[in-house]
Amino acid sequence: MSSDRIAHAGLAAKRRSAEEAAALIGNGMTVGMSGFTGSGYPKAVPLALADRINAAHEAGDPFQVKVWTGASTGPELDGALAKADGIEFRLPYNSDPIARERINRGEMQYFDMHLSQVAPMAWQGFLGDLDIAVVEVTGITADGALIPSASVGNNKTWLDRAKGVILEVNRWQNPALEGMHDIYYGTALPPHRVPIPLVHADDRIGEPHFRCDPDKVLAVVETDSPDRNAPFSPPDAKAHAIAGHLLEFLGHEVKMGRLPASLLPLQSGVGNIANAVLTGLIDAPFENMVAYTEVIQDGMLDLLEAGKLRMASATAFSLSPEAAARLNGDMARYRGKMILRPQEISNHPELIRRLGCIAMNGLIEADIYGNVNSTHLMGSRIQNGIGGSGDFARNAFISVFMTPSTAKGGAISAIVPHCSHVDHINQDVQVIVTEQGLADLRGLAPRQRAELVIGKCAHPDYRDMLKDYFARAMQGSYGLQSPMLPGEALAWHQRYMDSGSMKA
Amino acid sequence: MSSDRIAHAGLAAKRRSAEEAAALIGNGMTVGMSGFTGSGYPKAVPLALADRINAAHEAGDPFQVKVWTGASTGPELDGALAKADGIEFRLPYNSDPIARERINRGEMQYFDMHLSQVAPMAWQGFLGDLDIAVVEVTGITADGALIPSASVGNNKTWLDRAKGVILEVNRWQNPALEGMHDIYYGTALPPHRVPIPLVHADDRIGEPHFRCDPDKVLAVVETDSPDRNAPFSPPDAKAHAIAGHLLEFLGHEVKMGRLPASLLPLQSGVGNIANAVLTGLIDAPFENMVAYTEVIQDGMLDLLEAGKLRMASATAFSLSPEAAARLNGDMARYRGKMILRPQEISNHPELIRRLGCIAMNGLIEADIYGNVNSTHLMGSRIQNGIGGSGDFARNAFISVFMTPSTAKGGAISAIVPHCSHVDHINQDVQVIVTEQGLADLRGLAPRQRAELVIGKCAHPDYRDMLKDYFARAMQGSYGLQSPMLPGEALAWHQRYMDSGSMKA
Repeated sequence: MSSDRIAHAGLAAKRRSAEEAAALIGNGMTVGMSGFTGSGYPKAVPLALADRINAAHEAGDPFQVKVWTGASTGPELDGALAKADGIEFRLPYNSDPIARERINRGEMQYFDMHLSQVAPMAWQGFLGDLDIAVVEVTGITADGALIPSASVGNNKTWLDRAKGVILEVNRWQNPALEGMHDIYYGTALPPHRVPIPLVHADDRIGEPHFRCDPDKVLAVVETDSPDRNAPFSPPDAKAHAIAGHLLEFLGHEVKMGRLPASLLPLQSGVGNIANAVLTGLIDAPFENMVAYTEVIQDGMLDLLEAGKLRMASATAFSLSPEAAARLNGDMARYRGKMILRPQEISNHPELIRRLGCIAMNGLIEADIYGNVNSTHLMGSRIQNGIGGSGDFARNAFISVFMTPSTAKGGAISAIVPHCSHVDHINQDVQVIVTEQGLADLRGLAPRQRAELVIGKCAHPDYRDMLKDYFARAMQGSYGLQSPMLPGEALAWHQRYMDSGSMKA
Repeated sequence: MSSDRIAHAGLAAKRRSAEEAAALIGNGMTVGMSGFTGSGYPKAVPLALADRINAAHEAGDPFQVKVWTGASTGPELDGALAKADGIEFRLPYNSDPIARERINRGEMQYFDMHLSQVAPMAWQGFLGDLDIAVVEVTGITADGALIPSASVGNNKTWLDRAKGVILEVNRWQNPALEGMHDIYYGTALPPHRVPIPLVHADDRIGEPHFRCDPDKVLAVVETDSPDRNAPFSPPDAKAHAIAGHLLEFLGHEVKMGRLPASLLPLQSGVGNIANAVLTGLIDAPFENMVAYTEVIQDGMLDLLEAGKLRMASATAFSLSPEAAARLNGDMARYRGKMILRPQEISNHPELIRRLGCIAMNGLIEADIYGNVNSTHLMGSRIQNGIGGSGDFARNAFISVFMTPSTAKGGAISAIVPHCSHVDHINQDVQVIVTEQGLADLRGLAPRQRAELVIGKCAHPDYRDMLKDYFARAMQGSYGLQSPMLPGEALAWHQRYMDSGSMKA
């Protein structure tokens, strides 16, 4: 295999097989891996590590590691290691189905974190020591700097904090990625923190490469493997209806002078509702938009292509195979319109509040007062994690949450009397949108919010049940700031667990 | 009455009685008042307004206003207006007992907000128009600038945004307050927001006075009335035990190199537990401390006096009558060690994260996973409000919550299976302390957290009940990330409502 991606002689000399590299990782170690929403994660060493773990388990020996990443990764990392029962502890985000099962069976500890806080907490020493970093890069420069891959995530912090570093140089990643990244080296521990000098979404405040002491590099593994690019599921009628309500609202805000005509920097979650909103923006009357967000998904690429979005700042790509091919085919042109940053910068509260992002995120359930559960089905079973939604929702100019009003063919209502788990308190939820309508909750007290959420967002099948609960709570509640019946507040969830439906 | 506090001739000519000023306020108006934790609120115009409202109601006419403030005020404002049923809508915080009763009887709408977000949301146009500002000041300079009073709160924003301004010049406020305040005029709406140039707790980034267009001033009312200074309740044995656990923890963090020897800027809530912690710091081995907090309470004054605290930055005083007298007797000396700022600056996420505050707040209940309820008794009855706890807890270097393990003589457990209302999600809660012990939850997943919270923090009377619930949740839960039994999770609260005790 050629080494034209490794221009540094000392590091070229450290080329090893994935198996040799994986042999450096021992039972009980903490490993910081690259990877964010299926982009830029190491693809060979984790598989080789899973083989080692399987062999150890077959021999009756214990072998588990603690795994830290940027966010979700791919089947070759979370999937393979979870299948091997090789993960003792995981942070800060997971969407792998095998790992999810282990977590929800109580076989794996999962610390679900605000994505902006991972790097600071690692530096603060709150997460323990980091033994090994395993980081995918696009290439290595002659002076040993690392050209980042399709995600930045926490890589800077892992490279700086780990005792030893394993690099995967992935030939599949487009060399034209070089120059797209902006790695900020100005963070510090208090009392030495200073303002982050970013005032526009397209400001560059750092360097295009990671710094890394070559002496700390234990092995360099060459790979040629695609990122896990999930197929695009086209928006359905409900997604289009949700997008329609939201776009109408944004247009109204511009008309009232509360938003500029080019809006404010967009943050958007992933999934088909988010893509419907982004697709809808192609035909909406907003020009020269920018995005300051966590990931660049298909809809963002479409908006850039259409000339409606001027640029997008994020920490990673989250593209379908078709969109990834489009991007790779025209990377040099896209590169000037995109910036990938460390996730502590893409998600930094200081910057989100300064820029005034329009935050648009999904939810699992909202209660009648507008508290939001983004993570736990029936209060206990984790779906993915809070991700960056807390970073954005609390600090946004305006915080929007979107969902179809029902799930599981109508058996679950997304609007419930009381959230079974809370990720976003009502103070951080200004607008809720379902295909039924949009509830603008700004400036409203809880009882006022309840009327709007029930009236605008709930599915008709559940609306009378919610009205009935609220009316009875107005009678039997301990206090009437946020009327509630503790003995009944979570009865819908219990009923779903017992009967398969929230319906009475 | 002499007008030596009003050096501006044009404004001196606008002196009116409180009754004349109150006559400018009509039914349905929105009034932005000064006041934060019982300091610096207007004392004459609200009373005269309450009289007007009473007279209108006696005549069968409707008369209510919407009231915005910094935070809590005094009996002459919230108490008098609530007693007259004169408040239709209230934001962002209340601790007045009469208003609390009205809110919890459903007679008053109360929008409980993050205190850092009030000014930005007002500027963003999300709260509606502001008709009149009623602001207490210490004096008026010859060029018409306003010398702030014992709290800053949202006064800058009210003065800028209101269509008309009523000033109360309170002779009781010490003229030596002049120069203590730092009013920052650099905020803006996006896309024009820039970094806030504060990098140390003692940085001054603004001006000592409020700017105010004299033409907008409708009336100037002279008063001579003390702030409501609540008597100091000395810490009891439980408060001392909580303080002891926390100080031991902080000492350990310094020893481990995770905190500097002078700690990091302290944020502290009010009340006797907070005071016990501050009192304990007098004898602790930390020197040259600073505070970047919301209010300066008795314990802060003691720490300043003892030379252990170098300076304190806040937005208001919250002192006992004795401490207020001490401060007033020696204001010129204290002035150099204190800065009062607008609450959007004292509580700004950007600054709290940059400075790395140690956040220490109280709670009503925490669940076994470390979610915290700071506001709602039995999930529905509001006590005070979230205040600045969300601003500090999410952005702190380390976020600590403290409480006695039981309330109401043991009938209520502060540690419950499931919070009846969530103000602080588990991600924002790193340490929980009761008189029983301290749970250091950093870096832990939910099931790990549950063992610590139950083992370290719960009262022995409830510990076995919690263990029993957790064990059964491990069996019957829908998923095991955060094991939970929806049908039983809030049963303790229902039992308290039914029987007067959470005990089985």
